[in-house]
Amino acid sequence: MAVALPFDPAADVAAEPSIEGIVTLVRADMERVNALILSRTGSDVTMIPEVAQHLISSGGKRLRPMLTLATAALTAYEGDGAVKLAASVEFMHTATLLHDDVVDDSEMRRGKLAARMLWGNEASVLVGDFLLGQAFRMMIEVGNMRALDILSTAAVVIAEGEVAQLAAAKNIATDEDAYLAVIRGKTAELFAAACEVGPVLAGRPEAEQAACRAYGMNLGIAFQLVDDALDYGGSKAALGKNVGDDFREGKITLPIVLAVRRGDEEERAFWRRCLEDGAIGEGDLERAMALLDRHGALAETVERARAYGEAAKQAIAGFPAGPARAALIDVVDFCISRVR
Amino acid sequence: MAVALPFDPAADVAAEPSIEGIVTLVRADMERVNALILSRTGSDVTMIPEVAQHLISSGGKRLRPMLTLATAALTAYEGDGAVKLAASVEFMHTATLLHDDVVDDSEMRRGKLAARMLWGNEASVLVGDFLLGQAFRMMIEVGNMRALDILSTAAVVIAEGEVAQLAAAKNIATDEDAYLAVIRGKTAELFAAACEVGPVLAGRPEAEQAACRAYGMNLGIAFQLVDDALDYGGSKAALGKNVGDDFREGKITLPIVLAVRRGDEEERAFWRRCLEDGAIGEGDLERAMALLDRHGALAETVERARAYGEAAKQAIAGFPAGPARAALIDVVDFCISRVR
Repeated sequence: MAVALPFDPAADVAAEPSIEGIVTLVRADMERVNALILSRTGSDVTMIPEVAQHLISSGGKRLRPMLTLATAALTAYEGDGAVKLAASVEFMHTATLLHDDVVDDSEMRRGKLAARMLWGNEASVLVGDFLLGQAFRMMIEVGNMRALDILSTAAVVIAEGEVAQLAAAKNIATDEDAYLAVIRGKTAELFAAACEVGPVLAGRPEAEQAACRAYGMNLGIAFQLVDDALDYGGSKAALGKNVGDDFREGKITLPIVLAVRRGDEEERAFWRRCLEDGAIGEGDLERAMALLDRHGALAETVERARAYGEAAKQAIAGFPAGPARAALIDVVDFCISRVR
Repeated sequence: MAVALPFDPAADVAAEPSIEGIVTLVRADMERVNALILSRTGSDVTMIPEVAQHLISSGGKRLRPMLTLATAALTAYEGDGAVKLAASVEFMHTATLLHDDVVDDSEMRRGKLAARMLWGNEASVLVGDFLLGQAFRMMIEVGNMRALDILSTAAVVIAEGEVAQLAAAKNIATDEDAYLAVIRGKTAELFAAACEVGPVLAGRPEAEQAACRAYGMNLGIAFQLVDDALDYGGSKAALGKNVGDDFREGKITLPIVLAVRRGDEEERAFWRRCLEDGAIGEGDLERAMALLDRHGALAETVERARAYGEAAKQAIAGFPAGPARAALIDVVDFCISRVR
C-alpha cells in the first residue's frame, strides 16, 4: 500500500503550499481508487452513472480519499483495504454533496451546474442514496469491523451536523460553540474518519489512531473555516461558486458570528433582516462585506483556521519524518493558503 | 429469540386474513425493537427525533421488522441479533419513505401530513440520511458479515429501483418487465433482505436462506401490486393517501401497463396526455378508472398479486409446520386481502 519514495528531507519545507506532495505519494493507489469509483457508479439504470459521474468527474481534488491513502502510508499499511475505504470515503462525500445541493437549492457546484439543475432534485436524492449504499458495500468488503464502525458513525454524525446547520440557519443568535459543533459534524468528521481508518487498517496502537483522527478533525475544521471566509472574499473562479452564497442562504458562519457579536444594535437589525428574514436588497452583500471588514471578522476566521491547522500538524508530529508526514503537513498549508 | 407459543394447528387456516398471527408470534421481541427504534432516533439535534418520530409513530404496521423476527423464529434463531437487524430494516424503510416523499412531492403519508410539509424537504432528506446511517450502525453492532452484505446490497438495489422508476415515469411505453424490475428493486428487495437475514443469523443452510429470501421477494412483489391496484380503487381511509396519486404523479404501474397494452390508439393518446404530459383535467381520473375497468386491468393486477402470494407460501412450504410458518402464510393472505 505504502508507495516507496526516495526520502527527501527538504520536502518538509515546501516553498509554495501545494498538494503535490500527497498527489505524488498516493498516485499509484489513487489510480486504483479512481478505477473503483468509476466501476462502482456503474448500473443498468443509466441515469445513475450519468448523475454520479457528472459530479465525480467535475474536478474535485479527491482530498479525502488521498488522506486515507496517506495516513495508511504514514502508518506503513500494506494491503488492499485502503483503496476500497478511500473510494468509500469519496462516495460518502459525493452523496453528501448531492443531498446538500437539494437542501441548499444550489444552482452551481464546482463551477458547473449542480446535478439537480440537470436531472432534478429527485435524481440527486436517489443517486446520493445509491452512492451511500455503494460506500457501505465497499467498506463491508474490506471486512474491518473497527473501520466500519468509524465510517458508519461518521455517516450519522455528518447528517446530525447538517440538520444542526438547518436548525441554526436564519438565527443570528447562533454562537461560536454552536457553529463549531455544526462544522465538526458536517465537514470535519469525514476528514477525521478518513484519516483514522488508515492506522486502523494497519493495526496500529490506539494512540496512533487517535493522532491521525485528531489531524483529520483539525484539518477539517480549518478547511471549513477557510471555505466560510472564501464565501465572502474568494473569487468565483477559485471557488466554483458565487461569492455571497452563504449570505443569500442565511447561513450563519463564523465570520457572521464574529461580526454580529461585535456589532451594535443597528448592525444586528441589518443581519436579522438579511439572514433571518431573507429580505436582501441591492447593496446588502456589499454592506455585509464592509461590516465583516470593519470588525476584522474574515481575518480572525482565517486566524482561527491557522490555529486549527497548527493543531493538525502537531497531532502527527510524533510520527517519523518522511514523505507521508511531509505530504500531510503540506496539505494543511495548502488548505489554508486557498484564502489570502 | 423465538417466542414459545402453544402450537395451534388451526392457526394454519385463518378464517379472516389478519396479521394477528405474526403480531402474537413476535410480540416480545417487537417491544425491544420499538424501544431500540425510539432510542436510536435520539439526538442532541432536536429536529431529528421530531421528524423521525412523526413518521415512525404514525401507525405503520412495522411489517418488515416483524418479518425479520418471524423468519428468525422460523429457523430457530436464538440470540439478540435479530432485534437489531429488525430495527435496522425499519430504519431503512423509514429513510426511504422520507426520501420518497421529497421525490414524489407527496403531501400526505399514512393519513398524516408528510414530514416535508411540516419541516421542509431539507429535513426529510437529512433525517433520512441520519436514519440510514443509524441502520448501518446497528447492523455493524450485530457483526454478521453476511447479514451486512445482504442489507447493504438491499440499500443499493432499492436506490436503483427508485431511480429506474424515475426514468420510467411519464413513459407509457414502459412494459411489464421494466415495471417488475422497478418494484423488485424499490419494494420487494427490502422484504427479501428482511426475511433472508433471519436464517442467516441462525446459521442455517443456504437453501433455507434462499427459501426465506424467495418468500420475502414474492411477498414484496404481491404487496406492491396490491398497493398499485389500491391506488385506483382503495378508500382514502384504508390507504392513508388519496386515490389517484400515482395517476397524478405520472407513475406507470401495472394497471396502466395492462390498460395501455390493450387500449386503442385513442386511449393511448389519453394516457400519453395524462401521464406523459401531465395535462390532467376534470373527469380524467374517472375516465382512467373506467378504462382500467374495461380492460380488467385492476382485476388482473390483483390476480398476479395472488400468484406471487402463492409463490411466497410455496417458498416456505418445506419448513416444519408451526406458529412461525403459519404466521408467515397469514401475512401473505393479509397483504392480498387489503384489496377487494
